[in-house]
Amino acid sequence: MDLEALLADFTHRDWQTVDDSEPIRLALVGLGWWVREEAMPAIEESDFCTTSVVVSGSAEKATRVANSGEGITGLTYEDYHDGTAVTEYDAVYICTPNSTHIEYVRTAARHGKHVLCEKPMAATSEGAKRIVEVCADEEVTLMVAYRMQTDPAVRRARDIVGEGIIGEPRQIHGHMSDCVPDLIPNPDQWRLDPELSGGATLIDIGLYPLNTARFLLDRDPIAVYAETNATHEWFDGLDEHVSFQVSFEGCVSAACTVSHNAFNASHFTVVGTEGKLTIEPVFFPWDDRELAVSTGEATADLSFEQRNQMTEEFDYFAHCLITDTDPVPDGRHGLVDIEAVEAMYTAAERGERIELS
Amino acid sequence: MDLEALLADFTHRDWQTVDDSEPIRLALVGLGWWVREEAMPAIEESDFCTTSVVVSGSAEKATRVANSGEGITGLTYEDYHDGTAVTEYDAVYICTPNSTHIEYVRTAARHGKHVLCEKPMAATSEGAKRIVEVCADEEVTLMVAYRMQTDPAVRRARDIVGEGIIGEPRQIHGHMSDCVPDLIPNPDQWRLDPELSGGATLIDIGLYPLNTARFLLDRDPIAVYAETNATHEWFDGLDEHVSFQVSFEGCVSAACTVSHNAFNASHFTVVGTEGKLTIEPVFFPWDDRELAVSTGEATADLSFEQRNQMTEEFDYFAHCLITDTDPVPDGRHGLVDIEAVEAMYTAAERGERIELS
Repeated sequence: MDLEALLADFTHRDWQTVDDSEPIRLALVGLGWWVREEAMPAIEESDFCTTSVVVSGSAEKATRVANSGEGITGLTYEDYHDGTAVTEYDAVYICTPNSTHIEYVRTAARHGKHVLCEKPMAATSEGAKRIVEVCADEEVTLMVAYRMQTDPAVRRARDIVGEGIIGEPRQIHGHMSDCVPDLIPNPDQWRLDPELSGGATLIDIGLYPLNTARFLLDRDPIAVYAETNATHEWFDGLDEHVSFQVSFEGCVSAACTVSHNAFNASHFTVVGTEGKLTIEPVFFPWDDRELAVSTGEATADLSFEQRNQMTEEFDYFAHCLITDTDPVPDGRHGLVDIEAVEAMYTAAERGERIELS
Repeated sequence: MDLEALLADFTHRDWQTVDDSEPIRLALVGLGWWVREEAMPAIEESDFCTTSVVVSGSAEKATRVANSGEGITGLTYEDYHDGTAVTEYDAVYICTPNSTHIEYVRTAARHGKHVLCEKPMAATSEGAKRIVEVCADEEVTLMVAYRMQTDPAVRRARDIVGEGIIGEPRQIHGHMSDCVPDLIPNPDQWRLDPELSGGATLIDIGLYPLNTARFLLDRDPIAVYAETNATHEWFDGLDEHVSFQVSFEGCVSAACTVSHNAFNASHFTVVGTEGKLTIEPVFFPWDDRELAVSTGEATADLSFEQRNQMTEEFDYFAHCLITDTDPVPDGRHGLVDIEAVEAMYTAAERGERIELS
């Protein structure tokens, strides 16, 4: 790895092959805080896409959010399903409760629109499989919104692991915690309704260390184990705190913890035979990521210009559409995570390691 | 917690109540590299003990090591068991292969000598129980040599956790890895013979994150899970790489990894409801430990004068004898770790969570 290039060009988009193009017009489906406060500003900053349509359950909200920008059409879910303004967007970004993604994907696919679907793809692996099928049947591109995969820190970490700079990866630690009762002070939120979410913490943020490990190793899990518990009444019977292990081919294990009711923190470490790599903080878009690599006698602490993870993600998705390239986190990739998470819930229930087929 | 005191007096020995005393005279049993290169120099620096006898399987080695210091008597194991020079020492430090500790403990107890026994106490919980019984029957003090418990960084971390500065502890990450094939380039070493060692990596260094978690939380494990694998031929059928989980009362889990064939690295992190604490590096005596504490908006990175972990440990043991105080890491405390490790080996074999009684 060229140190000069690493220092001069840490945040370069290794996936980018075209410089400019007519932007991909996005319909944003679901107008919760994440879309309004994170996704829309990120798209504003993007090179390859633009928000042309916003879709909400509430006509009033759709209009209000549409009016917050220029040239944006506001639609209700009904309008969206009916095909209103269907010529005004090329692709959809779906950010509704997990179990409802499928209905918006189905409409998008029926209208020949490409899909960027928030993670987790669905509340169940059955739901995720249906999403994959629907998109395949209608031949639309499906990408799952794993924002870590386009974060420059994670991509450089992946280069470092891939080039063998830390030797053979052996053990991974991943952690992500936040405090949902403070962040979203509503006991009736969909994240705490397993029918809508598929669980609580594991399916929501367990995906971050899991998917980042998969991406860095370029391997899929072969077995999992998990243990869940709850302390807060909102999480009664749910997985508020989770400790889980993921086994990968080649004797690599990941030891991970996630919590939706603890101090805000995140870290990700890979220990190899010849070195160690840590990104900390890692998973929250508002934290400045830092990357440290140790091998032999020295450690490099890398600070770098932070990129908006969502801008990188939207541009990557749009660039895939523009260049007719398959996104890496496609539907089958996302399905593997849902299957692993389901297996972890089973593992936690049975107190057993579950092998993945 | 008083910041001024913390900065002025980070390394103070909170356990120390007397300032000087006739030193405890130690017989060191087993003269491998750890005793010669780490323990003896540490005792040289100590306030409360001195090396008066050294004991080896080889008379030549015993004499050579005895002659490396002043006023030290060299004994063979046979001499030791026979009670030769029994008036020349008050206590013994046992650092032989794990399964053989018992025979030296038995002799020490029979002679009314107090015992500092290297970790793990024994290769099996049966062996550990016998050691506890033997010392109880002869009314000699038994301490297990957990050097992390007298490391100032760990003690200050324990104060921080105990005072609730990071809130309720929720999730712990612990990691320790080294490269035994490089460190001890001999495939016939006792560490790789389960009859002598009780396993390979887990029983040897898995104890570090496990016992440090127990000590910081002041709680014992209630359930464990583990997964082991091996890549190097020396570890065929053994636990070269281990990923394990430990559950504690009050919904606290520790996610740990240890390897005897990877890059040298160690870290220990506690995430609580109100903050986070990390010691990194943590477990190797030759690494300068650092402690970071984050709560709310700020992080304190604490660097401090490093103390020789073994000097602290020997002085703590000697001070317990001088003041007639029970050591915290006593035999029953050490037995809990062996039982947890045995349960982890069973868990790994069965792919199941094992509850501890």
